[in-house]
Parts: sequence; C-alpha cells; structure tokens
Amino acid sequence: MPEPKQMLNVAMIGHGFIGKVHSNAFHQVGHFFPTPYQPRLKIICGRNRAKLEAVASQWGWEEVSTDWRAIVERKDIQVVDIAVPNALHAPIAMAAAAAGKIVLCEKPLATSRDEAERMATAVRHLPNLVWFNYRRVPAVAFAKTLLNEGRVGQIFHYRALYLNQSGNDPAKTSGWRYQRAIAGSGAMGDLLSHAVDLALDLNGKITGLIAMTQTFAPARDVDDAVVMMARFANGSIGSFEASRFAAGSRNRNSFEINGSLGMLRFNLENLNWLEFFDATEPANLQGIRNLLVTGPNHPYAENFWKPGHVIGYEHTFIATLGDFLGTLGRKETFHPNFDDALAVQRVLDAAERSAESKSWVRLDR
Amino acid sequence: MPEPKQMLNVAMIGHGFIGKVHSNAFHQVGHFFPTPYQPRLKIICGRNRAKLEAVASQWGWEEVSTDWRAIVERKDIQVVDIAVPNALHAPIAMAAAAAGKIVLCEKPLATSRDEAERMATAVRHLPNLVWFNYRRVPAVAFAKTLLNEGRVGQIFHYRALYLNQSGNDPAKTSGWRYQRAIAGSGAMGDLLSHAVDLALDLNGKITGLIAMTQTFAPARDVDDAVVMMARFANGSIGSFEASRFAAGSRNRNSFEINGSLGMLRFNLENLNWLEFFDATEPANLQGIRNLLVTGPNHPYAENFWKPGHVIGYEHTFIATLGDFLGTLGRKETFHPNFDDALAVQRVLDAAERSAESKSWVRLDR
Amino acid sequence: MPEPKQMLNVAMIGHGFIGKVHSNAFHQVGHFFPTPYQPRLKIICGRNRAKLEAVASQWGWEEVSTDWRAIVERKDIQVVDIAVPNALHAPIAMAAAAAGKIVLCEKPLATSRDEAERMATAVRHLPNLVWFNYRRVPAVAFAKTLLNEGRVGQIFHYRALYLNQSGNDPAKTSGWRYQRAIAGSGAMGDLLSHAVDLALDLNGKITGLIAMTQTFAPARDVDDAVVMMARFANGSIGSFEASRFAAGSRNRNSFEINGSLGMLRFNLENLNWLEFFDATEPANLQGIRNLLVTGPNHPYAENFWKPGHVIGYEHTFIATLGDFLGTLGRKETFHPNFDDALAVQRVLDAAERSAESKSWVRLDR
Amino acid sequence: MPEPKQMLNVAMIGHGFIGKVHSNAFHQVGHFFPTPYQPRLKIICGRNRAKLEAVASQWGWEEVSTDWRAIVERKDIQVVDIAVPNALHAPIAMAAAAAGKIVLCEKPLATSRDEAERMATAVRHLPNLVWFNYRRVPAVAFAKTLLNEGRVGQIFHYRALYLNQSGNDPAKTSGWRYQRAIAGSGAMGDLLSHAVDLALDLNGKITGLIAMTQTFAPARDVDDAVVMMARFANGSIGSFEASRFAAGSRNRNSFEINGSLGMLRFNLENLNWLEFFDATEPANLQGIRNLLVTGPNHPYAENFWKPGHVIGYEHTFIATLGDFLGTLGRKETFHPNFDDALAVQRVLDAAERSAESKSWVRLDR
Repeated sequence: MPEPKQMLNVAMIGHGFIGKVHSNAFHQVGHFFPTPYQPRLKIICGRNRAKLEAVASQWGWEEVSTDWRAIVERKDIQVVDIAVPNALHAPIAMAAAAAGKIVLCEKPLATSRDEAERMATAVRHLPNLVWFNYRRVPAVAFAKTLLNEGRVGQIFHYRALYLNQSGNDPAKTSGWRYQRAIAGSGAMGDLLSHAVDLALDLNGKITGLIAMTQTFAPARDVDDAVVMMARFANGSIGSFEASRFAAGSRNRNSFEINGSLGMLRFNLENLNWLEFFDATEPANLQGIRNLLVTGPNHPYAENFWKPGHVIGYEHTFIATLGDFLGTLGRKETFHPNFDDALAVQRVLDAAERSAESKSWVRLDR
Repeated sequence: MPEPKQMLNVAMIGHGFIGKVHSNAFHQVGHFFPTPYQPRLKIICGRNRAKLEAVASQWGWEEVSTDWRAIVERKDIQVVDIAVPNALHAPIAMAAAAAGKIVLCEKPLATSRDEAERMATAVRHLPNLVWFNYRRVPAVAFAKTLLNEGRVGQIFHYRALYLNQSGNDPAKTSGWRYQRAIAGSGAMGDLLSHAVDLALDLNGKITGLIAMTQTFAPARDVDDAVVMMARFANGSIGSFEASRFAAGSRNRNSFEINGSLGMLRFNLENLNWLEFFDATEPANLQGIRNLLVTGPNHPYAENFWKPGHVIGYEHTFIATLGDFLGTLGRKETFHPNFDDALAVQRVLDAAERSAESKSWVRLDR
Repeated sequence: MPEPKQMLNVAMIGHGFIGKVHSNAFHQVGHFFPTPYQPRLKIICGRNRAKLEAVASQWGWEEVSTDWRAIVERKDIQVVDIAVPNALHAPIAMAAAAAGKIVLCEKPLATSRDEAERMATAVRHLPNLVWFNYRRVPAVAFAKTLLNEGRVGQIFHYRALYLNQSGNDPAKTSGWRYQRAIAGSGAMGDLLSHAVDLALDLNGKITGLIAMTQTFAPARDVDDAVVMMARFANGSIGSFEASRFAAGSRNRNSFEINGSLGMLRFNLENLNWLEFFDATEPANLQGIRNLLVTGPNHPYAENFWKPGHVIGYEHTFIATLGDFLGTLGRKETFHPNFDDALAVQRVLDAAERSAESKSWVRLDR
Repeated sequence: MPEPKQMLNVAMIGHGFIGKVHSNAFHQVGHFFPTPYQPRLKIICGRNRAKLEAVASQWGWEEVSTDWRAIVERKDIQVVDIAVPNALHAPIAMAAAAAGKIVLCEKPLATSRDEAERMATAVRHLPNLVWFNYRRVPAVAFAKTLLNEGRVGQIFHYRALYLNQSGNDPAKTSGWRYQRAIAGSGAMGDLLSHAVDLALDLNGKITGLIAMTQTFAPARDVDDAVVMMARFANGSIGSFEASRFAAGSRNRNSFEINGSLGMLRFNLENLNWLEFFDATEPANLQGIRNLLVTGPNHPYAENFWKPGHVIGYEHTFIATLGDFLGTLGRKETFHPNFDDALAVQRVLDAAERSAESKSWVRLDR
C-alpha cells in the first residue's frame, strides 16, 4: 500500500450550486490525481440551517455552521474555500488570510478592483487559488500547449464570446447575480471574467481596451451584456462579448485564435473538443479539424478515463484542485491564484470605466 | 480571338426538372470548360406541347417536337440526350444508337438488367454518357484522388446512404417514380443507383451482396427503402441504404470510407465539403478535418469560381458534360458511360434477386 | 439530518479500467441520487496483488483478495459486481447467485447464448443488473421519452453504428478483447451488444436478421467488424454496423431513427446532445435541431448539474446505479437486467449463426 | 410561345473575376427569372486587349473595347455595369449617369464617403443597383422574412464576422485590393462593407459606433483587419469584425442575431443553410435547428432547382439581377441601390474616423 496521504481539513463557506461542485472536487480529487494531500470535508458553513444540513448530508460534510467568522479561525482548519456571492469574498478571504489559512475563492475574485488588490495582497504569502476552472478544460490546456509549441505562429486575432440566455428568462432573474450590491456587476463579472482569464492565460497581457455595456431588462442595475475591443501586448487584437441575452446559447464560453500558422477554436458547450486548423498543410488538405481531446497525449487524459470517453463540467474543478494540491506538495506557486484574478479584475475595472467614459482605457500592467 | 468551336446539335427528349438541368449544362459548359465543341440547343421533344414550348422558350431550344422517333433520325442532330422516365430510356437509346448518334442518358440506365445489357451493346461503338453526375462533385473527385494517392491506405469499410423523405410526403407520391411499370423500381433505381455508381468508382468491384427491400406505403408497387450488405473485390465490406422514408434527410447521398491510414466522408447536402481523417498524424492531432473543396488544387476549382466560393447542384452536370466533350475531342472513352451504368444495373439486379430470395448473390463480373 | 442510509457491502471482482468506472459509481451515486442505500466499497478482488492494492488505495476499497470464490460466499457481502473479462462472467455470476447475492455484471453478459440462458435463470429471483450503461445517457433516455410520446410517429428505420479504430492500432490488440477464448467474440460482443441493447430498448423486438462478420487482422480469431440487417416487430427495418477498424471514430455509438413524424439521432462522442427533426413543423421551418440535453426537463438533469453544464462518460454508470438502487428500494424490477442482456445475447447468437450460414435467421422471441 | 423579351444592351467595364460572375448572371437570369427584359452581352471593356478578347470569347460578349468613356456614351447601350477596381467606380458611374444609363456597380460603391454622396446624387433619377449580392442568398432573405414575421422578437444582439485568410498568404497580396490609392481601404471596403450592408438591411440603422483597425503586413497602406462595436436604432448592440488574417476562414461572412424569441445564424461558407433557434418551444425541445433553405417556401426556391438541391455563389448574382429586372418592369425602386450603398459608405467612413480618433462616432442618418 502507498504511503497514507496527509489530510487537509477544509471549511467551505457556501452551500449553493457551486458549493456542490466544490464538494464533489474535494471528494474526487484523490481518485484521479496522485497528490500527497487528501481534502477532508470538515465543515460547511452557510446561513440557512435546513439547506446546510441537507447539503452536508448529501455530500458528507462532517459539521455544519452558520458562523463563518468562527469557523475561519478554527485551528483544525487548514483550507478555507469561499463559494458565496461575490460581495462576501473579500471579508471571508481577508479573515482567512489573517488566520493563515490556505484560501480558495470563487470567481470573480471581488466586486471591485480595490477590493481585489487588498485581497491579493492579503493572501500573497499563503497558498491560494481562484476557481477559474476553465483553464483546466483539457481542450483549453491543449490549446495552450499548441500555442506554446508555436503551432499557431504569430497571433493576429483573439476572439472570445461567453454567451448564455439566462437573463432573457424572467424566471431566473431574481437571484443575487442580478443585483449590483451583491454581485458587483452582471455579465461582466459572471461571464466576461472567465473569458478574460482565458485570454490573459492564452494570449498574454492586454494593453488597452474599450467596452460598452447594456442592460436590456428594465429595473435591473447590472449589465446584461458587454462588448469589448482590446489590444494585446503581443500585437494581436481582441474582441470580447459576454451576454445573458443570447438566445440559442446555453453556456457558450468560446474563443478563436487566428495566427500566421493556424487557428484554434473552443466552445465550452462541446468541452471535449478542440478545433485546430494547420495552415502549414498543403493547401488542398487544409481544413478545420475537430480533435476529441480525451487522449492519447492530451492534458489530463491520464487522470480521467480512456481515450474516447468524455468528461464533464465537474472535471475541470477536479483538475484545478488536483493541480493545486500538486503545487502545494512541491511548494510551487499555483495559477490561477489571487494575483491572476486581480489581473482579470483590472481588466474588468478598465472595461467598466471605459463603458462609462465611452473611451479607450490603457492598462499599464 | 480563339478558333471557333465546332457546334454539336443536341436533341433532348424530355422537358421535366432534369431536362432543365441538362439545358443549363448545355448552355453553361462552354463558359467553364475549354472544349472544342459547343452544344447547340437544337430541338426539345416531349408529349405536352404547352409545357414543351414554355421550357423551350425559357431555355432557348430552337425547335420543339412531340415525336421523338422522327427527331432521333434527323441528319442535323449529332447528340441525343435522354431525360425521360426510365421505361423510355431503352427504346430511345436503341433508336439513337441505330441512327449513329452520340447518346447521353439519365440514370438509372434501364428498368432491368437485360434492357441495360442490350443498350450498352447498342451504343458501345458510339460516344456515350450516363448522367451519374455525382462523380463530378469536386469533393467526390477529390476523394478519389486521395484514395488513388494511397492517403486512406487499405480500405476496410465502405458505407453509403442515400436518404430523403420524399416518399413520406403523400403530396409527392403520385408521380412516375412511384410506379413500377415506368420507373422499374423505387428507391433502388432512383437513389441506390447513385450510391452504387460511386461505390464502384471509388472502391472497385462488388463480388457479392445481400439486400432487403421494404415498401412502407400501402398500395405502392415499388420499394420505398433498400438495405444492402456487400463484399468488394479489394477485401473491404460495404453497407448501403437507400430510402424515401428518412425524415430529416433532404438529399443525403453520403459515403464514408475507413482505411488503414485514414477516413473520407461526404454528404451531398454539403457538397462543397469533404471530411478527411489522417491516421498518420501524431495521435493527439488526429481529428476529422473539414475541407472546403473549392480550391486551390481541387478538382474543377479552375473551372468554376475562386477558392471560398461555393458551387451548387447544377455544376456537377456542367462538369460531367465538360469532361465528356473533352474526351470527345481527344477521342477517349468517357466514364461513366453505358457500360459503367450497366455495371450498376447488374448490382441492382442482384439486389432485387437477393431481396426476393432472401439470400446472398454472387456477382461474377 | 435525513435518515441514515442502509449500507450495501459490495465485492467487486476485477480491477481494470471498467473496475475504476464502477468504483467511481459506487462512490458517487449517493451524491446525485437520493436512494435509501449506500454502497460500501468493501472488497476488491483480482489476480495481481500489486495492481489490486494500488486500485484499492486509489478508490478506497477496504479489503483486497485474490480469491473470488471465497469472497462471493462471504456473509457480509450483499452485492457482487462482476468487472472481469467475459469468459469469467458466468462462473462468478452463478456462484454469486447461488450465494443469494445481488448480482451486477458487465456486458456482454456471456460468451454464448447458452451461458447467458443459464445465468439469467440463476439470478432471476435476485435483484440484478447488467451494465448496459448507455440506456442512461440523458440524450438516449430523452429519445425514449420522445418515442413514447409519439413525437417520431410510426418508425420506418432504425440505423445503428458502433465504430472505433482500436483494432487498427497494433499496439492495442494484444489484450483479452482480441481472443475468442476469453472474449467470446470481437466487435460483436464488445460493440454490437451495446447497439443491440439500445435498439431493443428503443425500438422493440427484432424478428429476423442477417449478418456478416469480417476479421481484417491476420491471425486473430475474433471478428473485427460486423454488419447486420434486421426486421423489427414494429414493421421497421434496421441496419447495424460495429467495427474496430473505422479510422476517424473514437467511440461512435450512434443511432438514427426515422419515423412518420420525425427523426432522432445520437452519437456517444457528443453524449450531451440529441438531434431531433420534427416533421410536423411548417415545411420551411423543418430542420434538424440539436438539443443540449442538460435540462430543464431532461432525464437526470435534476440529478447532476445545472442546464448548460455537461456531464461525461462516468455519469451514465452513476445513473444506472442510482436507478438500480431506487428499484431495489421500491422492490421493482430493474432494466437492463440479466433477462434484457440475454435478449441481446440471443441477437448476437443469431448474428453469429447467420454470418456462418450466410442466411437470414428468425428470432422467435 | 410567350411574348419576346425586350433586349437590354449591356456594356460591362471590367474583365476580372467579378466580371465573369456578372457575365454569368446576364446569361442566366432569363433562365431562372421570368422578367420582361433580356440582357444582351453587347460590349465588354478593359485595358488588356488579349485578356479582354479571351473573356469576351469565353462569355459571349459581342464586342470588346479599351475605351470605357466612348462606350458609356454609346446610344445603343442601355446598361452600364461597373466591375473594376474601386477607384474607378466614381468616374464611370458619373459618366454613365450623365449619359442617362441604367447603372450597376460593384461594391464598395466608392473609396470615400464624399465620392459616394456624389455618385448617389448622380444616379438617383435612374434605375441603379449595387452588387451587394449577399442580400439575395436565400438563407439571408429567409432570415429577413423570419425577422419581419417577429419570429426572433425584440433584437438584443447583432454579431457579424467577415473573415478570410487571404492577407496571410504572401502570394495573394500584390493586387489592387492591397493598395489604398486604388482600393480606398482594405478589409473595410472589401469585407466589412458586406457585413454592414446586411446589418442595415436586417437590423436597421446604426446610430453610433467605435472601430479599430490594424495592418499586420509590413509596408501595406490599407487595413488588414477592423473590429467595430455599434449601437442600432432599435436598441440592440452590435459587434463586427472583418479580417484578411483569420486562418481557418475561407469566406466566412456570418451573422448571428439574438432576440427575445429566438436566434438566427448564417455563414456564407454554408450558404444553403440557416440556423434558427425558437425560444417559444417547450424548454426541453429548444435547440438550434439547421434549415436547408432550398424550399419549399423559401426565397428563390421556385427560381432555381428542387428542394434538397443546393445552389452556389453565382446564384446570388442571378437573383440580384432577376429582382432588379423585375423592379425595372414594374417601375419600382430596387434595393440595394446607390443610396443603400451610400448608407454603408457612411458607416465605413465613420468607422475610419473612429479608428483614427479612437473615439465613438455618432451617425445622424
């Protein structure tokens, strides 16, 4: 038998949909990633005791609590995982950092750039992670591999969409995601943040941008849609669009990258696939090819099932956590961390200022 | 100015849908193919004088006639084009051959194998053509090129469908295509014949087969659907299916070829595209690629528009005629000709016998 | 807190790829399905102790053993799960049945029809399951819903493929799946069995069939490919093809159903999607629509994530187990069980006999 | 026989690729559109006599000339068709208008807004047309029908791309399209103009915009790419992108329209298809459906072939001309005409100014 793993006691604050996704990742990570650490679902924290107990029972959390402040300071907790509405990220993360915990936080990191700056500063000396899970979609990670290998050449265009139709459905729009006081923003923090994180990871820094936002629903105080143009440090130009009013899109987090040697395209609605166009082939054999990124020789193919056997949404969280625990064991810095999420927040902040001032905004770093 | 072209006076027998398609090809071939011959739309022949005159006027036929027997023997006619219901192919083709004409005939060649044998014998000394136009879809011709280059390797599977939903629509089913006395068969001659012609052209001889047929519509005396399994001389195995009861298919003439080195797939509903899978790529870059077969370096790309500019259904007839006139100038044998269509008819005949006897049938040649 | 669940001690025989998939299902079922039973990963059994201990450690099996006969008779075991090569299914299942266990078995049930008959008889008085997991793909289950609602009308065609390219890869072909003594058959038991199970479930009984098989690889004693035509009791006609030599296909378990009112199409490589064509729409709005079957109002959408969040291969096993435990609690008969798998085996047996005799075979029940 | 058609003598200035496309349209329009006029290919004009004669011979132009000024004033010419590089559009159109001719002109109308204003004024009293041919793609026209019927509801997003990879190919970049003095602009006039014309036609006026342009190729004085954000008078927001550096795109003129009741999507690379999403369907049956827009009850389906038989690029020119001749007969105003093209030019002009000033530009009309 292999050496026993070191247990990491986790306190998760939040018990909604995303809390279930995190619970699953804590359970599953050891089955797929050979890490020296085993998360233990120690305590789950929230405000509604009935729901809390139901979730705890379903997912095997050992304790429940309605007082996150007390929990965050408990000596037996090593990891604080923040899975609550955006406005609560900062106070919990600051408290957890003050208590010296490993801090995991949902995206977007904060409701403002200032908040994000303070949070990033607070956790910088501690292992930390932000759940920009889509970096670990195997197809996205493979896109990065191909970019790094130079298979796409010099990049000319980065084109990103994150579209759904949630806002167009009156039944769905009463939640916290549609209130500025809690969410900070609408499609921007919810959707554009993911698109920007992937862009920064895959295509590097944004040096300037201009955005426009639109609220279609009457009496809503967050943006329903945002369109953005950007320039990247590598000389390429970018276009971004995020919307909750895009009928026909369920969860369309997509990007397309055009370079001198090829093209890459991804859509989260078909997350096991990556499209690749190789412009170095003979002209009559050039075509967009559809790669089923389940191995062999694809990212995470060894962790999950066999080639040809697809994975789902939840596996991107498992892979994020698996990689994080790996860096923890090797005492390396994990990405995306609070600093990476701060970089995203700076872009969102610039986009908001740009939409207000109707002018280009430079990003100095 | 280049040398004037030699005029070929054409008599077309038939004035229905396919007659218009042929008329178009006679008009257009000189615009796209540099042949020494220019078809002249001399006379169009049919039974309904009002319709005949309308079609003649629309398409520029110089004369009309209701007596094909007289026309076929006219000295000033060099080409007889047969575009009438199947049961009339044989008498017209035999008469035209007897009169020494160049004979062009719609598919399926005949309503029986015996008829087809006699027809092929009759025209063998004359230039002749059967309108199995789909061989000249650029994507299909390019598939053949790739097969010939060995890009697919040893063939294991040939899989063909020709599906539409016409028979399922009561409004469409009163025509001659649904009557055995005129059509000879149903989906078999109408649809399977095309699939078999492509199979023979792309994958070589069929050595044996077993088929089943089904008539779904009450009181109809032709097959609505046929399914067939076959063995090819090259060691591969084939499956075929033709149906007029396939809701969701408009004109799905498709094939897929799996070999030791790759795969090719085509669907007439997307006729400008060919799918190609290259199994010699590194494993993690293998994917089905979608080739837009409009050039450069694709068949007929120089004849029609520029790369990226798609062609339509009618161009397959123009290309067929263009190639035919080219072979005429060079005194070469054109394919597909009556002998090729006879080979198809032998397969259809075997399929019918097989469906009746419920047993495998060998094809000796 | 809800009532504690009743534990079911599981002994799993086998520790290969599929054993991991089962282990995962035992772990996960309680997180997604509100069943009264909680599987406990009690003991895992296999022949290679080193591998066994590694798998046990990774997946949390409490004990390991190399003697399945002893395990199967242990009083503290309620469930025996059979995840070993095909030839071992029968002895283990018979022993487990004799010991009165709940028996779960991988597919294909057996290496012969006789074996399958004995096994089905042996377990008929016990709760039992065969892992034909693809019935529980949400898209497949939703197809069944639509069929039951009459949305496709009278069925004319059932067309199934299960294609991969594994056999074409010399590196993969030394395993037990390529040896008749252990596997019973090749593509037939491995792939066609799944296609037949779905066909029987979705389209009802097969009354007759004819098949051909082919072995492309030299010196291999199982079929590499099988093609089959069939007639169903409901008057529709079927075509089936299974192959390990279909370059371009990774795990293409697909079906298409054409009826008088519409069409349904599925491909396991895109398992979150179902294609649907509604022939009752106005003609100019009829088109194949692509349904992302992640809710709302799709099968299992409440069990897994939110609409727009895709699931993977493993969830089909979780759903199978979840439904099984539900029927166990309600003392109902689960499907697919050994009798359902026996029905599949009868079809495979008929197909083998048909391929040998080169003739149609009737299926009386 | 029907009444003889009235001949319209056409003088075409230009003999390049697009001149062939126009020649084809003049030939073919009478075969597909029952108009009272028959264009006669009277004279073709250009600078290279050898090429001119070759094109004249191939396409049946009766005369050739290298002096467009003389031709334009010929009494026997009724129609002047301008198919030359952009900088020549204005002088020829002004001269033709002065001579009272019917004027047809390639897009973009002009190399500047001022030029376009003068041209539109000059021809306003004469029948005139600009070859924004993509309005007559049946799928595009059908999209307009569905929009007009309210099937998409209130529009939220208009998203357009026109991408190709021509600029990325050094072999293609020496032509006039890459020189500001002749072309006026790069991707903007060549590609974005088409996208803007469709947007104005389908979604109405643009009230404001901001654009950025980029030249990737060294020593080129036109834009290689343009990205643009816009606001429409109907309250929707738009994003546009045109590029010659988008590897993987051959001729991707696409749009997507998201509204309160549905979605429409089109891509010129699959021009026979239109994607439609109907948000009024029951939630579990909502999916993007792919409509093969070849009839029945689709625009131009009666003019060309039968349902299921696809058309190509050239048919959009034939349909444009067919509709134009129809309006001529009925003495109606045709669209798109010079005024429509002027509206496009105003948007392009605003986009250029915006890209220079890096600021939003209002469009007052």
